[in-house]
Amino acid sequence: MRIAKKANKNRIYLDYASATPLDPSVQRAMHGYSEVEYGNPSALHDMGVRAKDAITVARKTVADVLGAHADEIIFTSGGTESDNLAIFGVVRAAKKHISHPHVVTTNIEHAAVLVACRALVEEGIEVTYVPVGENGIVDPKEIEKALRPETVLVSVIYANNEIGTVQPIREIAKAIRHFRKLKPKSTEHTVFQYPLFHSDAVQAPNYLPLVVDKLGIDLVSLSSAKIYGPKGVGALYVRRNTPIAPILFGGDQERALRPGTLPVPLIVGFGAALAHTQILCDKEAARLAKLQEYFFAVFLERFPEILINGDRNQRLPNNVNVSFPNYESDFLVIELSAKGIFVSGKSACKSGDAEASHVIGAIRGTVDGIASAPKTQEAIRFSMGRHTTKKDIDAVITALAQIFEKQKKWNV
Amino acid sequence: MRIAKKANKNRIYLDYASATPLDPSVQRAMHGYSEVEYGNPSALHDMGVRAKDAITVARKTVADVLGAHADEIIFTSGGTESDNLAIFGVVRAAKKHISHPHVVTTNIEHAAVLVACRALVEEGIEVTYVPVGENGIVDPKEIEKALRPETVLVSVIYANNEIGTVQPIREIAKAIRHFRKLKPKSTEHTVFQYPLFHSDAVQAPNYLPLVVDKLGIDLVSLSSAKIYGPKGVGALYVRRNTPIAPILFGGDQERALRPGTLPVPLIVGFGAALAHTQILCDKEAARLAKLQEYFFAVFLERFPEILINGDRNQRLPNNVNVSFPNYESDFLVIELSAKGIFVSGKSACKSGDAEASHVIGAIRGTVDGIASAPKTQEAIRFSMGRHTTKKDIDAVITALAQIFEKQKKWNV
Repeated sequence: MRIAKKANKNRIYLDYASATPLDPSVQRAMHGYSEVEYGNPSALHDMGVRAKDAITVARKTVADVLGAHADEIIFTSGGTESDNLAIFGVVRAAKKHISHPHVVTTNIEHAAVLVACRALVEEGIEVTYVPVGENGIVDPKEIEKALRPETVLVSVIYANNEIGTVQPIREIAKAIRHFRKLKPKSTEHTVFQYPLFHSDAVQAPNYLPLVVDKLGIDLVSLSSAKIYGPKGVGALYVRRNTPIAPILFGGDQERALRPGTLPVPLIVGFGAALAHTQILCDKEAARLAKLQEYFFAVFLERFPEILINGDRNQRLPNNVNVSFPNYESDFLVIELSAKGIFVSGKSACKSGDAEASHVIGAIRGTVDGIASAPKTQEAIRFSMGRHTTKKDIDAVITALAQIFEKQKKWNV
Repeated sequence: MRIAKKANKNRIYLDYASATPLDPSVQRAMHGYSEVEYGNPSALHDMGVRAKDAITVARKTVADVLGAHADEIIFTSGGTESDNLAIFGVVRAAKKHISHPHVVTTNIEHAAVLVACRALVEEGIEVTYVPVGENGIVDPKEIEKALRPETVLVSVIYANNEIGTVQPIREIAKAIRHFRKLKPKSTEHTVFQYPLFHSDAVQAPNYLPLVVDKLGIDLVSLSSAKIYGPKGVGALYVRRNTPIAPILFGGDQERALRPGTLPVPLIVGFGAALAHTQILCDKEAARLAKLQEYFFAVFLERFPEILINGDRNQRLPNNVNVSFPNYESDFLVIELSAKGIFVSGKSACKSGDAEASHVIGAIRGTVDGIASAPKTQEAIRFSMGRHTTKKDIDAVITALAQIFEKQKKWNV
């Protein structure tokens, strides 16, 4: 075996928002679908039927977690593809009826939404980026103000991937429903149920409720990679009768909305992983909220100069994102890594042309979705998970104190 | 364990073109990248670096098999996405320079190419479908005739997924190169190296050479799912300096041409699987060619009324595709399945609105890429693989004889 298990022993992984290990129960669920039950689920023969049955079970599992119908779940290759399918799919379908569709989003979306919106703008579609407040939370009233008769889609991330702030999805949904009712019934813009409401919920399933009817959302992006499931698979929930066009073309899998041979082992694993999050959700959320409180408290006590990024309360319980003035995040990430502590600076899925994080930029003064905040304000994200303990946090504090001490000596 | 290994014992799997089991050596290569080495390859810390290193090794492996540079390999979610990226990516990039780009393809492409082309036509792009001959092989001269000054892309499947016919890729590449040289140098259509040549090589790696410079191709689609690798991953080879636009938008992974967190275990497995095909290629091709010869010979002897679909020689050594007049393929697939023999009728990735196979339609008289051949001419595909033996073929013959005998009695 090239990779020794013991490699895990002395390391402190605090980058769960970036990638999670495969849960052993998920691995057990996937077992067999590669070597023994490898039939193509589109095949007519028994092995195909058994593969199809496995997909059906996984689809039902995902649907149940969302309180949805099985036929509302479209499996994709992950969160990015789900976001793209939601955005381009809705806009392209809308273009058949509405000459100038309009999209509303925020300035702290994941790159998959922001860069997709940028591509829409290049196509001549108007996009309104509603800025969040300093606390990293968008005001539903600001979303409502941005709505127009020709708005076809509102896309708001459920929980931000960098600073973990949880957006007021229900209130935004309420504002959208209110707007829909007020829309003049006679124009071309009243076709269907526009504006539709999409949410990137990739970071949500471990800690937040996902029942779509309670949230009031029409499209939801999910990824298996952040919920202790296999990487390379995700889903888009699409409410029944939602007008949406495919973005990939080929076979008629997934109601012809997403072609390609279904990767059975991944889908089985994704279903198992999502179901598993529901069993652990409340307990883990409570456990991590306590650790988070401790993390912030000790941080502020030891390093009072830090800035907490994002609302301290309305955030994912596993997310601790802080800026250390005068320290570049890349430097701290690498110094901590040398001590066996693995954390992130900006999102791993940064949007390329932005050097700094657009999310930190959004809460520290820039509003265009592209960051230009000073480097000294770059942030460190500590994202906790199922294996995180209080001891890990203490180790982080000790390590940071050592790093700062060493730096002080150098600077004398 | 829900799935007993013994389930394999009495079954004869002859649907390898549809799905392959995971090779044990591939599984070993993937081991660890889910539970232990699960870092996000975009992360800066040590675990991210190790994940990135694993991607780098896999990318180099894939590039080596193609005789390509590592930076020419773009990992995707599979063959369908690779085909879509090639077609839409090239056409969208070309549109910046050429007002009316034109595409040439054949009428026996995989649905991922054919339906993508149909979507292009809806956008107003002209597509020429060059018909194959009765033997299921396209004449390079016919491709050359279809080329125009504004042709930006030629897409021809390397080996057909249904009838296994191998297309004269080198000769087509030669015709394209010849045409490029003759193009007037003064028009807008001479920008870059158009027409580019793309080939869907999803069915090829187990048996055919893949060195891109020898084949003369600019873009090649590959899938891990058909080469005993994990499902849900593939690649597009893109020759350096090829103008191509992304079709998904988000993070800057894969040179910003394919966003989304890279699924490390899948990519590691894909690399290992492709490398493994190269070790087995010649030996397996020779072994299966003999079995194929035996298959056809016994078939013709026992059931002289059958029609062989596709050229008997210029085809993949694992593919035996025949029509049994007066028998619907679905009926035979299900009857054989009841006897533990798993084969396919039309492609699992059929293009939805076509009831019959467009490939069989193409070689039996229709030329528009959408089949309308009589149902009685539908075909059965026996696709052999690493575990196929002569005994399996004998069992198929016996089973078919029993099915036909039973039918005769019923029909008396």
